[in-house]
Amino acid sequence: MVKFTGAHIVSIDQFQRADVDLIFEVADTMEPYALRKRVTRVLEGAILGNMFFEASTRTRISFGSAFNLLGGQVRETAGFASSALIKGESLQDTARVLSGFSDVICMRHPAAGSVAKFASASRVPVISGGDGDNEHPTQALLDLYTIRKEMKGKGRSIDGLKIAMIGDLRYGRTVHSLSKLLSLYKDVEFVLISPHELSLPKNILELVRSLGFKVSCSDHLTESIVDVDIVYSTRIQEERFPSKQQADLYRGRFRLNQAIYTEFCQPNTVIMHPLPRDSRSDANELDSDLDDNPNLAIFRQTDNGLLVRMALFAMVLDVVNKVEQYSYAARWYKERQN
Amino acid sequence: MVKFTGAHIVSIDQFQRADVDLIFEVADTMEPYALRKRVTRVLEGAILGNMFFEASTRTRISFGSAFNLLGGQVRETAGFASSALIKGESLQDTARVLSGFSDVICMRHPAAGSVAKFASASRVPVISGGDGDNEHPTQALLDLYTIRKEMKGKGRSIDGLKIAMIGDLRYGRTVHSLSKLLSLYKDVEFVLISPHELSLPKNILELVRSLGFKVSCSDHLTESIVDVDIVYSTRIQEERFPSKQQADLYRGRFRLNQAIYTEFCQPNTVIMHPLPRDSRSDANELDSDLDDNPNLAIFRQTDNGLLVRMALFAMVLDVVNKVEQYSYAARWYKERQN
Amino acid sequence: MVKFTGAHIVSIDQFQRADVDLIFEVADTMEPYALRKRVTRVLEGAILGNMFFEASTRTRISFGSAFNLLGGQVRETAGFASSALIKGESLQDTARVLSGFSDVICMRHPAAGSVAKFASASRVPVISGGDGDNEHPTQALLDLYTIRKEMKGKGRSIDGLKIAMIGDLRYGRTVHSLSKLLSLYKDVEFVLISPHELSLPKNILELVRSLGFKVSCSDHLTESIVDVDIVYSTRIQEERFPSKQQADLYRGRFRLNQAIYTEFCQPNTVIMHPLPRDSRSDANELDSDLDDNPNLAIFRQTDNGLLVRMALFAMVLDVVNKVEQYSYAARWYKERQN
Repeated sequence: MVKFTGAHIVSIDQFQRADVDLIFEVADTMEPYALRKRVTRVLEGAILGNMFFEASTRTRISFGSAFNLLGGQVRETAGFASSALIKGESLQDTARVLSGFSDVICMRHPAAGSVAKFASASRVPVISGGDGDNEHPTQALLDLYTIRKEMKGKGRSIDGLKIAMIGDLRYGRTVHSLSKLLSLYKDVEFVLISPHELSLPKNILELVRSLGFKVSCSDHLTESIVDVDIVYSTRIQEERFPSKQQADLYRGRFRLNQAIYTEFCQPNTVIMHPLPRDSRSDANELDSDLDDNPNLAIFRQTDNGLLVRMALFAMVLDVVNKVEQYSYAARWYKERQN
Repeated sequence: MVKFTGAHIVSIDQFQRADVDLIFEVADTMEPYALRKRVTRVLEGAILGNMFFEASTRTRISFGSAFNLLGGQVRETAGFASSALIKGESLQDTARVLSGFSDVICMRHPAAGSVAKFASASRVPVISGGDGDNEHPTQALLDLYTIRKEMKGKGRSIDGLKIAMIGDLRYGRTVHSLSKLLSLYKDVEFVLISPHELSLPKNILELVRSLGFKVSCSDHLTESIVDVDIVYSTRIQEERFPSKQQADLYRGRFRLNQAIYTEFCQPNTVIMHPLPRDSRSDANELDSDLDDNPNLAIFRQTDNGLLVRMALFAMVLDVVNKVEQYSYAARWYKERQN
Repeated sequence: MVKFTGAHIVSIDQFQRADVDLIFEVADTMEPYALRKRVTRVLEGAILGNMFFEASTRTRISFGSAFNLLGGQVRETAGFASSALIKGESLQDTARVLSGFSDVICMRHPAAGSVAKFASASRVPVISGGDGDNEHPTQALLDLYTIRKEMKGKGRSIDGLKIAMIGDLRYGRTVHSLSKLLSLYKDVEFVLISPHELSLPKNILELVRSLGFKVSCSDHLTESIVDVDIVYSTRIQEERFPSKQQADLYRGRFRLNQAIYTEFCQPNTVIMHPLPRDSRSDANELDSDLDDNPNLAIFRQTDNGLLVRMALFAMVLDVVNKVEQYSYAARWYKERQN
């Protein structure tokens, strides 16, 4: 029985470095299926309950596709209105009922802590799809998996990495979770670039510092990204602000484009972003003139998300060692553009 | 060809006792698949059109999962806005079009009578998922199936049962349908507990009485539940009231908790509820301190819903005798918590 | 490799007559699967991203069912609010991300030109599900496929056809696209019946005339449908008008019922409509007393849509010649009413 069989995946706090490394090794083995070179039917007959009580098309579809790629079926909900929760049902009741219909559940909800509460009453494993400004563990995992892959391509590893995190470090939960995950590794150096009011929460900053990592803070972009390996840009989390006006104050403060990249970054600094990137003219966090830059890893991140989520499903449902056994060559056209 | 092949399931009025018993026998055979001990592919290639023109996450997902568990695919809609109905299309046209895409349709709609109208124009069997305050036949079937199972566990049967129905007996369609179904059996005694204004509609009350069943009415909970076999609690159907204020008058009128249960109920009185139970403090129909009471059958009800819906699909599509033939042992982790 | 392998299907302008004929030949071969005589698993493991950023239950479910009938899985979204687009993401980013999750995408969006933009950034083939008042190519194809089939039943072909197009010819994109497709054939005669303000856009009118087709315009129904082979009625596209009031001016202007049909039409004039037909009393474009008229082809149109969409999927994913190889007889009840 592989590790995490039957487990809930609700917080990156539940992972040790060895756990993360194991997930990444399993994720590597999912590539032939994600690239449609092979089809596996290992989860034929299994049902994912894809319960998104807060809209998130991309994350919802990534989880659903990952499950389909392992051969399983997906039942899902999107949005809050269509839920018994508004009729006064407790999250625990909802969990108990829905877990009777499925083999594993992905759950997203706007309230911090709601996924853990839901998981406590579920009869089947629950994987978090994000709960408010609290956690989004699979995003953090796919970010770190991408960092590992990008660095590996350069003969490096996560240990010894220097990373700049840029933007809304206060409300951006992906930054929080990624910081924690990175702190499982060695000699990582953090460059935190944000307006003072949107700086990294104290508890995370102190955690990272207490573990002996080098951390510097700045509210200027260009001079701070000079010698980093990774630039991790983020969106102003408008939906977490008291009002749109307050969010607007910060939108577009740190813009990266090809000219700035060429002038200030190392020639192969990797550019990341949890997406969606805000491409409206008043924000334009990552200019579209970066799209031809081979170091722009933002779409590799989302592609990697499929691998990481397939790995988690396979581990939680204990089929890691059966994926190949129930596989065969895909039958259809599978060239991919771009 | 098994009974109900190709039939619409739109009202419990279409059932005789023998029909109900047959459905329950088929439901029993679905257990290995619902529990994921085995996987069946008998409906591989078939499509359920899961047409919910009124939101109901739990019922929609129960139907969809039941169909998936038989190996079929599900196409679905949730909500009214996304429908051609608002462009002036008749229900019959919608039915004719959608039935061209699927092998069987589940349909829910806020207007009473709409499912029968829809079924009249459908080319494929239609199973009601509830139409307003009219009917919700599969809920009534799963309730009765649960009663049968719970009583069987005690060496009893549906015949001779004494059941207390509590709460909004006026708008609660599950109570209406369950009363009708119970009246197919023998020597059932009904204890109806509700505010006078929310008492059981006259036509149902008269039907039950005219068949010679013993019926008593009350607006007090505790003394009325003293010697019943089943306590069937229901939610105030806020969405059927003219205003929330009028519904609020009745919310929380009949609360059951472990102390009351211990003091007034028989030691093994079964507690049921069609769910969702309203767990807000001003309602709290069934207190969460009952959750460890082994006689609380509310989650067994929803689990049984899967079996009953699988049975109906198998009967309507005439595959009852082929389910096992196309089955094999499930490949993944299937321990269930709680 | 069959034609259109890996191609986007975003405009009927990309088709020559031979292309259309080829699609129709492939569509013919899909009938045993659409009628559930046989099941094919050729696309087992493939994923359709069914991305409807504008609601359209019928088209969405038709695409999804077509993909299911070829053995594939469907992940989907319905509506705009649940999309990262409102967080400022460009259509191209959305396309790049979603195309990483699927093997082919169907996309519908309210803005004209959006599907082509989306397709430009997609890594996998994109099939248009309609973009505003611009194009809806699969609707035009299924309309023409229906015309071909109906005429074939009468020993005729598309060449030499006389067709009346009725209603909102200005905003009704299906009329635009169908006109273009028909102009690939020979000796087609167009009778355009609309209020002057809703007449066919000039560019399409000129295209058809410049190719030498006979075109007449009218704002009277009865005398204009006397000797046509096809009556193609359309709905006032209320949602494309500046206000409901302006749309109301035209609603119900051209009503066809059995009495008018009997008095004015040829005995076997085929009646078509892209659906939904507006059956409210103030519109009633095609009266329900036509429902028993064997020449009413409106539901055969929507049934044919399944065949055409299956054909496009099979061609785009290059499995036309493998569909049968991975097929077997369906196992369930498949009689269809009506």
